[in-house]
Amino acid sequence: MKTEAIMKRSVQAFEEYSSLPAGVKAKFLRDIAAAIEKLGDSLIKTVNEETNLPEGRLAGERARTCNQLRMFADILDEGSWVEAVIDTALPDREPIPRPDLRRMLVPYGPVVVFGASNFPLAFSTAGGDTASALASGSPVILKGHPAHPRTSGMVAEAIYGVIKDMGFPEGVFQHVEGGADTGQELISHPSVKAVAFTGSFQGGMAIFKTAMARPEPIPVFLEMGSVNPMFVLPGKIKEEAREQAVLIAKSVLLGAGQFCTSPGLVFVPDSDNTETFLEAMAKTFNEAGEEKMLHKGIVSGYYDALESTLKVKGVDQIVRKTGSEYTGAPTIGVTSLENWLDRPELQNEVFGPFTLVVRYKDQNDLLKAAKALRGQLTCSLIGNDSDLKESRELATLLSEKSGRLIFNGVPTGVEVSYAMTHGGPFPATTDSRNTSVGAWAIKRFVRPVTFQSAPAALLPEALKSSNPLGIMRVVNGKHTDKEI
Amino acid sequence: MKTEAIMKRSVQAFEEYSSLPAGVKAKFLRDIAAAIEKLGDSLIKTVNEETNLPEGRLAGERARTCNQLRMFADILDEGSWVEAVIDTALPDREPIPRPDLRRMLVPYGPVVVFGASNFPLAFSTAGGDTASALASGSPVILKGHPAHPRTSGMVAEAIYGVIKDMGFPEGVFQHVEGGADTGQELISHPSVKAVAFTGSFQGGMAIFKTAMARPEPIPVFLEMGSVNPMFVLPGKIKEEAREQAVLIAKSVLLGAGQFCTSPGLVFVPDSDNTETFLEAMAKTFNEAGEEKMLHKGIVSGYYDALESTLKVKGVDQIVRKTGSEYTGAPTIGVTSLENWLDRPELQNEVFGPFTLVVRYKDQNDLLKAAKALRGQLTCSLIGNDSDLKESRELATLLSEKSGRLIFNGVPTGVEVSYAMTHGGPFPATTDSRNTSVGAWAIKRFVRPVTFQSAPAALLPEALKSSNPLGIMRVVNGKHTDKEI
Repeated sequence: MKTEAIMKRSVQAFEEYSSLPAGVKAKFLRDIAAAIEKLGDSLIKTVNEETNLPEGRLAGERARTCNQLRMFADILDEGSWVEAVIDTALPDREPIPRPDLRRMLVPYGPVVVFGASNFPLAFSTAGGDTASALASGSPVILKGHPAHPRTSGMVAEAIYGVIKDMGFPEGVFQHVEGGADTGQELISHPSVKAVAFTGSFQGGMAIFKTAMARPEPIPVFLEMGSVNPMFVLPGKIKEEAREQAVLIAKSVLLGAGQFCTSPGLVFVPDSDNTETFLEAMAKTFNEAGEEKMLHKGIVSGYYDALESTLKVKGVDQIVRKTGSEYTGAPTIGVTSLENWLDRPELQNEVFGPFTLVVRYKDQNDLLKAAKALRGQLTCSLIGNDSDLKESRELATLLSEKSGRLIFNGVPTGVEVSYAMTHGGPFPATTDSRNTSVGAWAIKRFVRPVTFQSAPAALLPEALKSSNPLGIMRVVNGKHTDKEI
Repeated sequence: MKTEAIMKRSVQAFEEYSSLPAGVKAKFLRDIAAAIEKLGDSLIKTVNEETNLPEGRLAGERARTCNQLRMFADILDEGSWVEAVIDTALPDREPIPRPDLRRMLVPYGPVVVFGASNFPLAFSTAGGDTASALASGSPVILKGHPAHPRTSGMVAEAIYGVIKDMGFPEGVFQHVEGGADTGQELISHPSVKAVAFTGSFQGGMAIFKTAMARPEPIPVFLEMGSVNPMFVLPGKIKEEAREQAVLIAKSVLLGAGQFCTSPGLVFVPDSDNTETFLEAMAKTFNEAGEEKMLHKGIVSGYYDALESTLKVKGVDQIVRKTGSEYTGAPTIGVTSLENWLDRPELQNEVFGPFTLVVRYKDQNDLLKAAKALRGQLTCSLIGNDSDLKESRELATLLSEKSGRLIFNGVPTGVEVSYAMTHGGPFPATTDSRNTSVGAWAIKRFVRPVTFQSAPAALLPEALKSSNPLGIMRVVNGKHTDKEI
């Protein structure tokens, strides 16, 4: 069987690849970045044909993809990410001696990564999940997204070229084409040790159920839906109703609303300036050109979700353009806070250029909304100094509901850096203890192992007393980059 | 309903307790330790009556329990455990500015802890799971183990006293009595956000299934079974057959074999000294006094598992004492490596004073055994310098199968320190990325949250530019304890 052969290659590759020096893996990641860049315009052209995403955006996404690969290479070169911890022996301790204990993070096996439709480069074949898994020392089986097979194949070929040049076993990275069945078959295989996925709630939960029903359950890192609520506070709307409305509208419309962090829910106070705010939003929506969405399935999914939301009692539609089978019509719904609280289905994600404006009366309303919110990738607070001063409790509640809490900014635009969290409480993800963007994404694919009283020759470099890698370690409870 | 009221109190307590300064939580943990010590001899007497564990061992376990609480208090005082990471703003970056991003670990909600029967103090009511959860800022609902209800109640009362003295909400810690049904009801409640458990594979998997079937799945930290294989290498057995046999036998027999890390599997080379080794083991087993086990259920479980193992074809019994309905008869089984490889049921844990000796021929046999092994809490290598020099591949394979790899030592005796890993690949646990013993156990109950462009006044202390806590942070990718 095909899956059997794929997994056999992956397991074989794990033994060799995971034990390579960090510098070799770093070169591998940098060479992949260079190989992707070398694909040049033909890559951009192919992605554009397959996804309808504009070339400018795709050039930016390619840069982000390559930057990500190079960031993980830098992390490997620096080396402290393995969290080396050493407790030295206390042979004279009473009542019993303490042995020498040394702990670090190590990869635990082959990872299945699902390519995402909405980021054909940065969250697909050589995207953040692949880059962080390869950086951790784990081989990757990439299930390409069926909406961009040629793109996925081109990037996979670029990676294969680097694998060949470096003399790595071919199982370090394997590209598999197919639909949901193929994915299910892969993650059911006993040799798979982790899964990374970015996509819909339904798709994610199908993967979750399969992974948890395996004889050996495995960690799955599923980034699913989020409506990324924005809370516009009274002082700010008084000062900048129009400006904020345009900023938020543009964030909703960006890339036809096909970002994980697109703001699909905006809380706006009932005030003198509310009409100005809504008019400015509506104007921006009406002026927006109609953008083609990724593929027909996404468009029909958008209209289905949109209809479900708009037919909910108490929801008024203040803007809707025409749309077609290729384009999603930018749409705004409006409802009251009471209605939103009464109807939990209004929290469902409408993936596309839609947002629901919820009108609230006072701070107390916002606290109720924050408490009722499901888990989110992001929450945003838009307020002036005096608004924010009075929003301590609200900010705390929102930080409990999200992976990232933004002040006076829109959620779209996810920085790839050390301090990023792209994750959050369920249903944004199935496990809020992780991020799928940024440096810490690598930690998903590693586990701790402790060596007790190990002879120096059998210790990994990161744990040797002389600290040959010069990394930051915790020795007897204190951070130090010195030798012991 | 009772569970409803318990969970309501827990959720209310979370808001207040999680936001307390670290120093207040540290005092709480230290006061609990002092309150447990103040229970004095009457606690030890009660535990002894309920568990049959000898008073000397219980005094040691109490010390360990209190040390654990104080270790987490120290970790809170030091403060770096929150993994603060800061990326400062780059307003002039092209093509777009980078916002200020600050990330740290925060608790995510109420934790249900299951008391364990085999550590009535250190893994029960105020044990490592409770201590690490409370340290993280999470309220605890403790499901007491029905085998030691009075012990559990006494410790719970001690904690209640401290909660009252400190003026905390009562939901910070709640003690619940009951059996498996009570546990299932608790973990099914939507307000529970995590579960910690130490116990059998069957008990653990029942919890796992319930937790994963919830509308909102939650992380569960289940430490289940492990046979903790020891690999005795040829050079060492030539030099110290008798000494090593006695050391290993004593580790098996310790506490009537009722430790998670009891070595239930010993690989011994076929050599001139094998009979000497087996005789010395048998002698130690025969001379061992018969110890009462924890309770009748454990005894009958021991004999059931023992019979299942001894009736497997090719397993010889070389020692078995009488036993009773209160005591587990110390028993040794012996088989060949071929037979062990052919019969995976020989990897099942026999919880009690039993070990299976597996005779192997050469290094190649050991590699086969290591590859066939299921996930373990520990693996041990017993060898002289030249044995270990030739065991690099074996050591790597065993590190992939276990949470802790021990050189020339027995697995019993789990140090509570920074570098400990008490965890391991399935079925030792359901998720190898955690430890349930040592400093890092606190990380199970926290998740990252990122603050983007937050006003200084709304930032947690750990993330303020001036670094008022003086903790180690990662700023723009580099470790530093300086202000920004």
